[in-house]
Amino acid sequence: MPTESEMTAKESLDPVISAPMHRAMEAASFIRQMFEEGNRLRAELGDDAVFDFSLGNPCAPPPESFFSALRTVAGESSPADHRYMTNAGRPDVRQWLARRLSAEHELDITSDHVVMTCGAAGGLNVLLKSVLEPQDEVLLLTPYFTEYLFYIQNHGGIPKAVPTQKSFQPDPEAFRRALGPKTRAVIVNTPNNPSGVVYEPALVEELGRLVDEHSERMGRPVYLFMDEPYRRIRYVDTPHPSALLVSRNGIIVTSFSKELGLAGERIGYVVLNPRIEGVEVLFGALGIATRILGFVNAPAFMQRIIPHCAGSTVDLSLYRKNREILIDGLTRAGYEMPSPDGAFFLFPKAPGGDDRTFCDALKKQCVLTVPGSGFGAPGHFRISYAVPTERVEKAIPLFARAIDEFSD
Amino acid sequence: MPTESEMTAKESLDPVISAPMHRAMEAASFIRQMFEEGNRLRAELGDDAVFDFSLGNPCAPPPESFFSALRTVAGESSPADHRYMTNAGRPDVRQWLARRLSAEHELDITSDHVVMTCGAAGGLNVLLKSVLEPQDEVLLLTPYFTEYLFYIQNHGGIPKAVPTQKSFQPDPEAFRRALGPKTRAVIVNTPNNPSGVVYEPALVEELGRLVDEHSERMGRPVYLFMDEPYRRIRYVDTPHPSALLVSRNGIIVTSFSKELGLAGERIGYVVLNPRIEGVEVLFGALGIATRILGFVNAPAFMQRIIPHCAGSTVDLSLYRKNREILIDGLTRAGYEMPSPDGAFFLFPKAPGGDDRTFCDALKKQCVLTVPGSGFGAPGHFRISYAVPTERVEKAIPLFARAIDEFSD
Repeated sequence: MPTESEMTAKESLDPVISAPMHRAMEAASFIRQMFEEGNRLRAELGDDAVFDFSLGNPCAPPPESFFSALRTVAGESSPADHRYMTNAGRPDVRQWLARRLSAEHELDITSDHVVMTCGAAGGLNVLLKSVLEPQDEVLLLTPYFTEYLFYIQNHGGIPKAVPTQKSFQPDPEAFRRALGPKTRAVIVNTPNNPSGVVYEPALVEELGRLVDEHSERMGRPVYLFMDEPYRRIRYVDTPHPSALLVSRNGIIVTSFSKELGLAGERIGYVVLNPRIEGVEVLFGALGIATRILGFVNAPAFMQRIIPHCAGSTVDLSLYRKNREILIDGLTRAGYEMPSPDGAFFLFPKAPGGDDRTFCDALKKQCVLTVPGSGFGAPGHFRISYAVPTERVEKAIPLFARAIDEFSD
Repeated sequence: MPTESEMTAKESLDPVISAPMHRAMEAASFIRQMFEEGNRLRAELGDDAVFDFSLGNPCAPPPESFFSALRTVAGESSPADHRYMTNAGRPDVRQWLARRLSAEHELDITSDHVVMTCGAAGGLNVLLKSVLEPQDEVLLLTPYFTEYLFYIQNHGGIPKAVPTQKSFQPDPEAFRRALGPKTRAVIVNTPNNPSGVVYEPALVEELGRLVDEHSERMGRPVYLFMDEPYRRIRYVDTPHPSALLVSRNGIIVTSFSKELGLAGERIGYVVLNPRIEGVEVLFGALGIATRILGFVNAPAFMQRIIPHCAGSTVDLSLYRKNREILIDGLTRAGYEMPSPDGAFFLFPKAPGGDDRTFCDALKKQCVLTVPGSGFGAPGHFRISYAVPTERVEKAIPLFARAIDEFSD
């Protein structure tokens, strides 16, 4: 029997959408609330008065090679370029990627290991759809990108948070303890959203070793999905670990959203590890998953653009400058944060200890940020510095004022 | 206890993908087998010897307005055009569509009733994700597009086939009997894939009336999803019924794949009925579903193209000509089929009665078609005439030869 309060809760749900979708909207509401709060403040006080560091919308412009590719490809377009294709994507583009990836990872990667996707979000959904048995667990290292929770639940899986070190570097011992009979995959995201931390390659290698041992033990592959859309947004020389080399079941998921500034175009790809036993079955499943989830194939026009932008990335100088101003200003003001060596995020400790309370205090200064609770890391908050530098400069005194409220 | 054969079946599944994905691949295999068989025949006998009517890949070229829009939009592109946007899609494009739709349906449709989608397949997945409770039923009128089964199962729903009349027109009485406490939606697809039948507006109105009555009775909306990507591919004057008018819970799902020849570009949209009680909640849910399923938003570049192609459609003369040749040739040869008034499909009765057997006989003539069993209508087979006319002309004698084998 449901209790009275459960019945009331159930009855009060608008039947226009499903109960699970109500729960998803509730879970997603902390970002919506922030967004609405931002709009309310802007309407009340004017755009200039509000300092919005809450969104992860990459603002560095696409490189010039992209705009010239747009014009070239538009001029060359023929009817067949716009039709259905193999669900995995255009063979010529996949071959082009496979050649580059083979050289980079020193593995024999063919076009049958590459699947073009609707961004990294599309890639992760397609992978999870392909491999998750009902109730399988997917490990997430804290802090993690909130949307992973939804992606995993979309396909009947259960997200399981794994603690990391104080520095937010992976903790292999905690990871080892989290592996269990239902573990099917881990999502490793470096450079990390929300922390900006760049994982140490030796630690990622250790995770890969543990995953491979666990696969052996369980008699089925435990996958290491390396979600690396921020890979080329790094401010240190730490090498980026190869998911394909650290684990025989390592798989790369990425997109051009950040490195080319194309988040709205929904173009990315998955690279399957040629060392996976039965990789051809997995490749076939990814094609079917791409089709039946409704993607059908990654957008055709943008697939053709990608080879024209080889080697280009967005100009990092904007992010670099914002990052320096913020690290300097916030450190002086007394904030502490893990090493923000990549992406365009800082993830400081919330002065006073409670992230929601502190984000509210920042909001009183018209500074919008995101509480760490939403990323599985209460006690911290996320600052996205994908904004004009002028906004960063003007916000420093406001950050300083907010922390003053919480000092002894 | 599983039986021995169940255990063997389970053990023989490659653990590289999940058991549900193995089942999906098995279910999808009849199309793959056809495709592989086609490739085998082509490799053996040469391209010219094989007559492939198995694929629904629209081949009428996009109109010239599309190619000129590509060049214009590519030339005008600015960095902000390629960033993340509201999950529902670009406000300017949604407003443009809303104005046209308001005039057409004589309803007050705003941009908050329009969601840009990754084709109609993306739109249906987003809708089903938003409204299905676990085990909710979705009604499908036979014959139906096979992929609906997957879309429904993706989101925990149960597809339920509803018989139609001999002509494959909707049967309101059978439909009424199929409505039950778990019914959440019906997908109505006219012009129909695979039958080519254009539903009579009066019958669709009757379905709408039954759906609205059932919504009242059940105290929650039962939706009528009108999947209408073939809407502008019709060869008769029968008007196309408005989903928004036939039911207060009628919703339009469509794409530009067929009418502009852009199947690979993944661009379409959903129109919510402004008369739905709580439509603003449903609109919000569609945004979240778009995001968490990994679409995030419909491809940005193609959204900008659409308003430039207003009123254009592909040139139907190719399809029209192929259709006439086939109807004439097949009827003379003794085939019977429901009225093929739209799309680019014929769905004749399989001579001899067994569709798989007859498709095998056609294959011996190097003619590839799809058995109706895959569309919930055994005893028929699908011919897609989205192919060059020369192929159609040469295939007529082969169709005639195949039916001769099955005549008394």
